Amino acid sequence: MWCDDMSSYLEMSKEELEALKKDLEKKYEEMKALGLQLDMSRGKPSTAQLNISMDMFDVLNSKSDMHAENGLDCRNYGGLDGIPEAKKLMADVLDTTPDHVIIFGNASLTIMYDTVSRAYSHGLLGNTPWCKLDKVKFLCPVPGYDRHFAITEHFGIEMIPVPMKEDGPDMDMIEKLVSTDEAIKGIWCVPKYANPTGISYSDEVVKRFANLKPAAKDFRLFWDNAYVMHHLYEDKHDEILDILSECEKAGNPNMVFEFTSTSKVSFPGGGISVMASSIANLDEARKQMNIQIISHDKINQLRHVRYFKDAEGLKKKMMQHAAEMRPKFEATLEILDRELSDAGIGKWTNPNGGYFISFDALSGCAKAIVQKCKEAGVTLTGAGATFPYKNDPEDSNIRIAPSYPTAEQMAQATEIFVLCTKLVSIDKILADK
Amino acid sequence: MWCDDMSSYLEMSKEELEALKKDLEKKYEEMKALGLQLDMSRGKPSTAQLNISMDMFDVLNSKSDMHAENGLDCRNYGGLDGIPEAKKLMADVLDTTPDHVIIFGNASLTIMYDTVSRAYSHGLLGNTPWCKLDKVKFLCPVPGYDRHFAITEHFGIEMIPVPMKEDGPDMDMIEKLVSTDEAIKGIWCVPKYANPTGISYSDEVVKRFANLKPAAKDFRLFWDNAYVMHHLYEDKHDEILDILSECEKAGNPNMVFEFTSTSKVSFPGGGISVMASSIANLDEARKQMNIQIISHDKINQLRHVRYFKDAEGLKKKMMQHAAEMRPKFEATLEILDRELSDAGIGKWTNPNGGYFISFDALSGCAKAIVQKCKEAGVTLTGAGATFPYKNDPEDSNIRIAPSYPTAEQMAQATEIFVLCTKLVSIDKILADK
Repeated sequence: MWCDDMSSYLEMSKEELEALKKDLEKKYEEMKALGLQLDMSRGKPSTAQLNISMDMFDVLNSKSDMHAENGLDCRNYGGLDGIPEAKKLMADVLDTTPDHVIIFGNASLTIMYDTVSRAYSHGLLGNTPWCKLDKVKFLCPVPGYDRHFAITEHFGIEMIPVPMKEDGPDMDMIEKLVSTDEAIKGIWCVPKYANPTGISYSDEVVKRFANLKPAAKDFRLFWDNAYVMHHLYEDKHDEILDILSECEKAGNPNMVFEFTSTSKVSFPGGGISVMASSIANLDEARKQMNIQIISHDKINQLRHVRYFKDAEGLKKKMMQHAAEMRPKFEATLEILDRELSDAGIGKWTNPNGGYFISFDALSGCAKAIVQKCKEAGVTLTGAGATFPYKNDPEDSNIRIAPSYPTAEQMAQATEIFVLCTKLVSIDKILADK
Repeated sequence: MWCDDMSSYLEMSKEELEALKKDLEKKYEEMKALGLQLDMSRGKPSTAQLNISMDMFDVLNSKSDMHAENGLDCRNYGGLDGIPEAKKLMADVLDTTPDHVIIFGNASLTIMYDTVSRAYSHGLLGNTPWCKLDKVKFLCPVPGYDRHFAITEHFGIEMIPVPMKEDGPDMDMIEKLVSTDEAIKGIWCVPKYANPTGISYSDEVVKRFANLKPAAKDFRLFWDNAYVMHHLYEDKHDEILDILSECEKAGNPNMVFEFTSTSKVSFPGGGISVMASSIANLDEARKQMNIQIISHDKINQLRHVRYFKDAEGLKKKMMQHAAEMRPKFEATLEILDRELSDAGIGKWTNPNGGYFISFDALSGCAKAIVQKCKEAGVTLTGAGATFPYKNDPEDSNIRIAPSYPTAEQMAQATEIFVLCTKLVSIDKILADK
């Protein structure tokens, strides 16, 4: 997964490095003079991707029958937890059954926030509300997703970083912490094509998650399966085990909340989202939802189901997205490979799906690289953003999001990125000499 | 507003009442035998109303330009607090300016819930989070909206009923309570065509609200202007003062959160919602929203604005809704008038707008009337639902929702309702004799 032949720059003499630096600085000034404005900061679909599902807006018109298959008029109140055909679609996507899902609004982030908020104010399945406890902690595999960390930070929850390994987070560490510390109430997971590493959890990791023996009765896996369908290649698909059935088998049926949405399938902000969990957890969620809302947008649910038809239809659309995304990843990776694979000043991931490439620079270099890129017109996610409290103790990780620019722009941006990485790394190596 | 000539039944002799009862019972059994299934329990638009805006689904299609007027692609992330044209539309509806509004998702109920939830977990403008206080109280004008009361009950907030008068809630009581009790943090208000009385607050009431001197610095008016455009008649429109500018003038700019939505204009569950407040309150809300969501459904915002065009367009649509609603209100009121205005066993409201008629039966009769109606196939909102904790101390108030059935069905349902009211009242009077 990681391309990490860290050698060459570190073996160069001071004089060699200084000569190289001079040469690179010239190139950097030339690049800077181009006045580029390139953004690879967020996992945002490109305009070409948004065009893929434009015909979704032809699916419903003034002549359409607006009834769900259970006879519910999607234009009126009712249907708190979603229309049956939307439940079926999203259950199939998550490899579970419709009774294990609730369809929500346009954003799975909101389901996650609301679930934490509900645990905070009311507690989960009869356990003490988190707001009444002195201390609540969450485990945070790192590098991870900044918006996850923002939720737990917002609720004053202490976040403990857990390193990511090749096949998922460090399970030895997780098992030890979760089984001994009752204050640990949850963990943020992106189990497939993780944000930002692109790593997918191995079967063994999923099983170890399902078999955790938490000290806290209300410990929960916040299983954000955001990229469940986001393959990059036709022939290389990561697959992960269904966490719900694994938790059930392990006697921990209530231990997981799984989330996903169609945000990057249909439209960001215009899609539908889903939570999958045990019946007991969903019943509790429905009880609270019934206070918060009468129903989510069932018309949009209907629009999505009539458009995609089934999980197969959805997967086919995802291959169109993959065709847009792949050249950008390839352009980025080709330049990283060509320019850095022998330099020993960075390692990066080469994922089969998802939205990101994770890059680890030499310790202490990430912030400076991001800053130097910015000065040359390339915006990256802020260094540190992939860690709780935006604090990357190594100042090493940088998240590269290739989706929004064109492949040509990504190539340009990556050229600048490698230039900046080289320059900052040389300074670092020289300073350390 | 109230038709309350309470005389005749109370003046009848035991024998007269018993004879009448016998006659009415026969009619009731005949009605029951019809096996009707009529629902006047919820403020739910009829199918004919849902058809009014069906051509909204022709507004966007696969060829549409999906950019907002500020250039934002509505299909992508961004635009946390709404697209400018949606802000303008909803600001005009609420008689305020776009900088005073945030556009939310499909349900104003969710904004209210989330606002209470935020106050509970994080506090408002630097004040102590409500979850850290021993006691939090809300004032609840009664009869009122059950879903408001459900929110405050859910958060363990003590609810204090405040009687409704002809021109709004009892302001003497409110002023006294709010100025002396620091635990009182809010009040639920439906200022126009109130649910369920249909009463609109007089200018004096609105000004007294704006000029409250609350003991609690974080006291807020939860001003649910749900029926701001929901007139029933072309020529009789209640108008209320803009609470935001009144609060500003009174030196209480942060004291109000105002809400509305297009749920009963376009589609319940498929509309757009709005919160209006001071910049300081909105900034705080945005800060929290930024953790909870990336953006609401901007495509649906765009669809609504392109369809309604402006507040005038929206008001015109509302007159089509009024044309659907009016005959149902008139059919109901005509029968109530004919059958009960001389009976002295009930009084009811005759509103200029909104979705409800509020009926006050003799003390101790409401539950029995609702039950008797149910047995004859007419579903009403549960008695007591219009009071906090579903507890109407007089067991008197019944909410009638004429929107969903046809005018003919409403006439039938009302015939049964008056029959049941008469029968239950006679039993009550006989028992008291």
